[in-house]
Amino acid sequence: MTESLLLSRRDLDFLLYEWLDAEALTKRPRYAEHGRETFDAMLDLSAEMAARHFAPHNKKNDAQEPRFDGERVHIIPEVGEALRVFAGSGLLGATMDEEVGGLRLPSLVAGACMAWFQAANVGTCAYPFLTTGNANLLLAHGSREQIDTWVRPMVAGRFFGTMCLSEPQAGSSLADVRTRAEPRPDGRYRLFGSKMWISGGDHELAENIVHLVLARIPGGPPGVKGLSLFIVPKYLLNEDGSPGARNDVSLAGLNHKMGYRGTTNALLNFGEREGAWGELVGEPHRGLAYMFHMMNEARTGVGLGATALGYTGYLHALDYARGRPQGRPLTDRDPASPQVPIVEHADVRRMLLAQKAYVEGALGLCLYAARLLDEERTAPAEEERARARLLLDVLTPVVKSWPSQWCLAANDLAIQVHGGYGYTREYDVEQFYRDNRLNPIHEGTHGIHGLDLLGRKAVMNGGAGLRLLLETIAATARRADAAGGEAAEFGASLTAAAQRLGAVTAHLWAGGSPEEALANASVYLEAAGHVVLAWIWLEQLLAAQGGTSAFHAGKRQAARYFFRVELPRTGPQFDLLMARDLTAAQMDPDWF
Amino acid sequence: MTESLLLSRRDLDFLLYEWLDAEALTKRPRYAEHGRETFDAMLDLSAEMAARHFAPHNKKNDAQEPRFDGERVHIIPEVGEALRVFAGSGLLGATMDEEVGGLRLPSLVAGACMAWFQAANVGTCAYPFLTTGNANLLLAHGSREQIDTWVRPMVAGRFFGTMCLSEPQAGSSLADVRTRAEPRPDGRYRLFGSKMWISGGDHELAENIVHLVLARIPGGPPGVKGLSLFIVPKYLLNEDGSPGARNDVSLAGLNHKMGYRGTTNALLNFGEREGAWGELVGEPHRGLAYMFHMMNEARTGVGLGATALGYTGYLHALDYARGRPQGRPLTDRDPASPQVPIVEHADVRRMLLAQKAYVEGALGLCLYAARLLDEERTAPAEEERARARLLLDVLTPVVKSWPSQWCLAANDLAIQVHGGYGYTREYDVEQFYRDNRLNPIHEGTHGIHGLDLLGRKAVMNGGAGLRLLLETIAATARRADAAGGEAAEFGASLTAAAQRLGAVTAHLWAGGSPEEALANASVYLEAAGHVVLAWIWLEQLLAAQGGTSAFHAGKRQAARYFFRVELPRTGPQFDLLMARDLTAAQMDPDWF
Repeated sequence: MTESLLLSRRDLDFLLYEWLDAEALTKRPRYAEHGRETFDAMLDLSAEMAARHFAPHNKKNDAQEPRFDGERVHIIPEVGEALRVFAGSGLLGATMDEEVGGLRLPSLVAGACMAWFQAANVGTCAYPFLTTGNANLLLAHGSREQIDTWVRPMVAGRFFGTMCLSEPQAGSSLADVRTRAEPRPDGRYRLFGSKMWISGGDHELAENIVHLVLARIPGGPPGVKGLSLFIVPKYLLNEDGSPGARNDVSLAGLNHKMGYRGTTNALLNFGEREGAWGELVGEPHRGLAYMFHMMNEARTGVGLGATALGYTGYLHALDYARGRPQGRPLTDRDPASPQVPIVEHADVRRMLLAQKAYVEGALGLCLYAARLLDEERTAPAEEERARARLLLDVLTPVVKSWPSQWCLAANDLAIQVHGGYGYTREYDVEQFYRDNRLNPIHEGTHGIHGLDLLGRKAVMNGGAGLRLLLETIAATARRADAAGGEAAEFGASLTAAAQRLGAVTAHLWAGGSPEEALANASVYLEAAGHVVLAWIWLEQLLAAQGGTSAFHAGKRQAARYFFRVELPRTGPQFDLLMARDLTAAQMDPDWF
Repeated sequence: MTESLLLSRRDLDFLLYEWLDAEALTKRPRYAEHGRETFDAMLDLSAEMAARHFAPHNKKNDAQEPRFDGERVHIIPEVGEALRVFAGSGLLGATMDEEVGGLRLPSLVAGACMAWFQAANVGTCAYPFLTTGNANLLLAHGSREQIDTWVRPMVAGRFFGTMCLSEPQAGSSLADVRTRAEPRPDGRYRLFGSKMWISGGDHELAENIVHLVLARIPGGPPGVKGLSLFIVPKYLLNEDGSPGARNDVSLAGLNHKMGYRGTTNALLNFGEREGAWGELVGEPHRGLAYMFHMMNEARTGVGLGATALGYTGYLHALDYARGRPQGRPLTDRDPASPQVPIVEHADVRRMLLAQKAYVEGALGLCLYAARLLDEERTAPAEEERARARLLLDVLTPVVKSWPSQWCLAANDLAIQVHGGYGYTREYDVEQFYRDNRLNPIHEGTHGIHGLDLLGRKAVMNGGAGLRLLLETIAATARRADAAGGEAAEFGASLTAAAQRLGAVTAHLWAGGSPEEALANASVYLEAAGHVVLAWIWLEQLLAAQGGTSAFHAGKRQAARYFFRVELPRTGPQFDLLMARDLTAAQMDPDWF
C-alpha cells in the first residue's frame, strides 16, 4: 500500500510545523539534539516502514486471525517480522531517555510517527503500543532494578508488555477486582485470579511477556483503594536475565472479535497451580494510581488509533471517489455524455468533507494533546508544566472518546462512498469500520468517559480544569476576533458554545443529586467534545489563513464545515442538559 | 433462540390491533374470510418457525458463508431446510390470491410475519423475500402464461427469484445499463451482459432461478427510457414446465461481504456463449417502470429488515443488561455491597431507551406503510385508494432509509450495552451490526433516497404528496391537541417541525438551481425522517394513552424520549437547509 493512502504527510507537516510549532521544542534542553531534520527523518522512516512492513499483512491477519490450539497461539509470520523491524527503529522507546535505549523524541513527533503504523495495521500495532505504555509506567513508578530487568528488554523489543485490569466479574467496575497476591518471605508474591480482555495476552512474538497486573494483597482495604500493581512475567528470569521456566500464567482462551483481529485478546489464568510469581511495583494499595499512568497513555493512544483508522478510510474513499465514474451532473442527464467521477456529486463531496473534518480535526486534537505532554515534561516554568498537566487531564476523556465516535463515523461514510464495493472484503474500508468499533469500548467505555468528564474532570479542584479549558478556548477566540472575517464569526460561535458549556456544567451541579447531574453524562461528553473540536478547527483555520495552496483552501473549507454543520449539533444537546432531562433515567426497567 | 429475543409479540399486538386496527381490514371483501384468529395464527406460526428453523443457523451461515468452487455454490444444508419449511407455510404468497397459491393476507399482517424471519436470520430470508417480490411484479405486469409458468412455481417454493439491475459500470446510474437483448424470430430474446450485486444470484436451493433482468433492445432510446424487462431463467423449461437444459447464464463469482453473508451475492454473466434466452415482460422500453414495482416493495422490505435487525439487537441488549451485574449506584460506592444489573445505570437505560425508540418507531412506520398498501388495494373509494398510494409513494424513501440509519444505530448501541462481550463473535449483536450495515447501501443508497425525496417525491404533482403527508401529520396533531396534556405539547412540537419541513421544501425550490436545492438532500431526508418518526410516535402515544400496563407506560416513555431527545436534532438540520448551505457543494475536489 502506498503511504499516501495511510495518512497525509502534508497534513502532518501542517499540524507539526505550521500550527503546533514542533521546532520550538528543539530549544528545550531535553530535545536540543533534535532539529526538524531528525523529526522529518523519523516521520519518513515511519511512513515507509508502515507502508512496507505493516500495511501488507493487515488484511491477511484479519482473515487468518490468531488461533489457539490449546498449546500455543499461532500468528501469521508477517506480524513478528514487522515487529522486529519496528523494534530495530528504536520507536518502542521513542520518547524515553537514551540510557534505557530511547530516542528522546517529543511526544508530539512520536505520536505522529505512531499514527502511520496505526493507519497501516492497528492490530499489529497493539503489541508495541502496550509494550511502550508498560515500560513508561515502570519508568515512572518502578524501581531501578525493575527498570533494568524489565524496561530495557521491552525497549529493545525482546519482551512485550500487557496491562491486566479486567476480570470476568469486573470490567468497568475495578472495585470488584478479586485477583489476590499473597506475600512470600522473599518479598515476592504469588498471584491467583483470572484476567479478561488482555490484549497481547499470549503469543510467541517476543522472548517474554511482562504482565502488569492489578491484584489485592490480603488485608488491604476493599474497593479500588486495595489494589496493588504487580509485574508478572510469562517466563521467570534466569540469573542472567534471560527467560527461563514458565510462570504459573496460562492462556484459558482467546476472544474472537468483530475486528481488531490481529491483536490476540485473551483470558488469562494466574495461579492455577502454585501461584504466579509477581513482584510489587511501588507501594502496596497504590496500584490503580500507577495504572492510571498507563491508562491515560493508552486512552490517548486509543484516540490516535481511532483517528488513524478514520484517516486511512477517508483517503481510501477519496481515492475511490476520484477514480470511480458513475452518473452525471444534475444539469446533464444525457446518457450519451460520459459519466463523471463520483467526487463530482454533491452528496459524495459532503461525505468526503465530513470525513476530512472528523479525521483532520481528531488528528489535530491528538497531536495537541501530545504537545501538552511535551509541555508538561519540558516547559521552563513549573506553572506552565502544571497548566499543561491540568489541561491534558481535562481533555483526556475527549481525546479518547471523540475520535472513537467520529472517526468510526468517518469509516461508516468511507464505506458509503464506496457503495456496494465498500461493503465487501475485497476492499479495505469495511475492515477499518470493524476495527474502529472497538475504540468506544476499550480503555473505558464511552459512558465511563462521560462520567469521568462531567463527574470528575469538570469539577476537580473547584472546576479549575474546566476553567482552564474555557480560558484556553477564549484565547483562541480572541485571536480569531482580531483576525476578523469568517475567523471572527466562527470565533463568536465558539465563544457562545464554550460559554454554554460552562453554564451547563454549573447548572448541572447547582443543587440536585449526582444522579440528576450525571443522568446525561454521555450527552455532555459529546457536546463538550464538539466544542473542543470546534476550537481545534478554529486553531487550524487560523494557522491556515495565510496559505494560498489548495491544501490550505481545503483546511479552511473543512473548518467552515465544522462550524456550519457540526457545531450546531450541540444546540439541542445543551438544551437537553439545561432542562436536566430525566427521560432516560426515569425509565423503569420493567417498562422496557 | 427463544422467540422473545427476536421481536416483541406484545408490541406487534399493540401495533396491529391497538393502533392500526388490523381487524377493520376483515370487513373488506378481499379479507372477509380472515379474522383476528387467522392473523394471530399466522403470527404464532411465523414466530415459531423463525425461532425453530431460521435463528439456529444464523451464526453458522455467517461463519461458514456460501462458497463457490468454480462449479457450484455450497451453502450449509440448514438454509434449504428452513426454506422448505417456509414454503410449506404458504408465506411466499402471503398477500397473493388463492388461485396462484397465495394466502390473501393483508400486507400489514404479512409484514408482521416476515419481520419474525428477518429478525431470526436476515441472510436466509433474502431468498423468499426476492422470490415474493419477483412474483408480485409478474402478477402485476406479466402475461397470463408467464404467471402460470413462473409465478406458480415461485409461490410454491420450487423456483426462486432475483432482480438483476446493476452492472459493474452501472450501480446507482441505471441509465448506463448495457446488457442487450436481441429479438429472435420466435418472439424470444437472447441476452448478453454482466449483472452485479445479484442477491440469490446462484445456488441450488430451488429447482430453478427466475432472473428478472433489465436490458436494452437494440434500437431503443438511450438512458433509462430504453430499458426493457426480461425473464431469464437459470434452467430452460421442458414442455411440461420442469427445468431442463442450462440457460446461458453463468456465475462469474460471489462477493464476500462484511455481513449479510448468508445470502449469496453474485456477479452473473449472461450470454457468454450463444446468448441467454429471455422473454419480455410487458411492453418494450417500459422495464424500469415495471421494475419499480419490485423495487418499491424491496425498499419497504429493506426498511423492515433493518428494523428487525435493530429490534432483535435491542432485545438481546435488554436481556444482557438485566442479567449482567456490574458496578453500583452513584450513591452507593461501598465495594462490599453487591453489584447491580447494568440496566440500573442511567447511561445503559439511555442506550436501551434510544434503541426502543428507534426500533419500535421503525416497526410502527413499516407497518403503517404496509397498512397503506392494504388501503391502496382494498379501500372502498377510489379517492381513498389514490390517497394511500400517494402517501406511500412519498413515504417510501423514509421507510427505506430511516430504519437503515437508525436501527443500525440501535445495533451500535446494543454492542455498547454488551461492552467488550458485544464486540466478540461469541455473542450475537456484532453480527446484527454487520448485517445491518448493508441496508443504507442496497436498493438505492442513502444519498439516492435523499434525491428521490427532495427532488421527486416532495415536488411531484405540484407537491401533492408532501402536502398530503403534512395534512396527515396535522390530523394526528389535532387529535393530540384534543387529548391535552403531554400529547398536546408533543403535538405542538410536531406541528412546528412539520411546518418547518413544508417551509424548507418551498424555500429550497423557490428559485435557484436544482444543484443548490439538492445540495443537502441527504440532510433533508434525515430531517424529514425524524419528523415522520415523531408523527409515528405521537400516533403510538395516542394509542397507548389509556393503557395502565407497564407495556403502555414504556410506550409513553419512548414517545417522550423521541420528542425530547430525537426531534430536536432536526433544528440544526432545518437551519442548514434554510441557509441553503453550500459548504460541501463548494468544496473543490482539488482541495481534499
